[in-house]
Amino acid sequence: MITGHVFIATSLDGYIARPDGDIGWLLQRDDPDEDHGYKAFIADKDAIVMGRGTYEKVVEFGEWHYDRPVVVLSKQLQGSPVPERLRGKVRFTDLAPREAMQELERQGARKVYVDGGQVVQSFLREGLIADMVVTTVPVLIGAGRPLFGALPEDKDLALVASRSFPSGLVQSTWRVLA
Amino acid sequence: MITGHVFIATSLDGYIARPDGDIGWLLQRDDPDEDHGYKAFIADKDAIVMGRGTYEKVVEFGEWHYDRPVVVLSKQLQGSPVPERLRGKVRFTDLAPREAMQELERQGARKVYVDGGQVVQSFLREGLIADMVVTTVPVLIGAGRPLFGALPEDKDLALVASRSFPSGLVQSTWRVLA
Repeated sequence: MITGHVFIATSLDGYIARPDGDIGWLLQRDDPDEDHGYKAFIADKDAIVMGRGTYEKVVEFGEWHYDRPVVVLSKQLQGSPVPERLRGKVRFTDLAPREAMQELERQGARKVYVDGGQVVQSFLREGLIADMVVTTVPVLIGAGRPLFGALPEDKDLALVASRSFPSGLVQSTWRVLA
Repeated sequence: MITGHVFIATSLDGYIARPDGDIGWLLQRDDPDEDHGYKAFIADKDAIVMGRGTYEKVVEFGEWHYDRPVVVLSKQLQGSPVPERLRGKVRFTDLAPREAMQELERQGARKVYVDGGQVVQSFLREGLIADMVVTTVPVLIGAGRPLFGALPEDKDLALVASRSFPSGLVQSTWRVLA
């Protein structure tokens, strides 16, 4: 069975970006000398699913640092051409979360990195997330794009691990219980 | 200088109660065999400040387990009589956060436990919170009363300590930087 996995950072008040999408507050608190485990996390993932917001933010950075196939879920981008430098690396689709995962499964994927607030929320609602690594950044930003959203019912979690870093980041791994 | 201190639990999605105030989801995940540090926290506090929502929830529980003077900030309750069994233990006031703290300071208080979402938010906005012990409960409830709210500016935090419990709770202590 194909499963979705989250690896994401939020402010203590639960935002992944400011209202306008800015993540400067996050980047400026990233200590490049600390290993927050992204490499270990991505090692066994076969593909990455993200929304348009995350995709456009990453493209804006210039450098494309993903070495896994990326699927962008977007009704708006679907049908538009993938930028030349990203051909073969990125695919746009308007499939719903479950159908997008089924398609990835048919293509041989087993574990998928699910990134971006809106996409994480829709995948959680659909029961497509197996676990989440949530890193809390020591700041309150007061407003922004929340990591979590409305749910049809409570989602029970099991704590898998928790650790903190000298920079003040707290990283917890939660398994989503059925 | 008098300082405010927070000790509070939230769901992973940042809620301290459901939209109707219910905290059953929280109580049912509390393991009475685990010491989450409340006793150690309250030991050096001189008074407790809370809002009407928290006060009414605690009164509803029947047993009054606070052994510190409690100040309830409430324009609505101000002027109404304190229930007989709570006389001498509880005081209603319509003072603003800063004025309430100044009054407590004149009365000799140095460290104040600040409880309840709305009150924590207003005290944070006013710069009256020195540190926060935030315990994350392993559940997503999807909607409710958030711990944090809007702020006039970012609040930088320093991680003081973080620990997790067998029940899956993650408790982090944050110092609020000036």
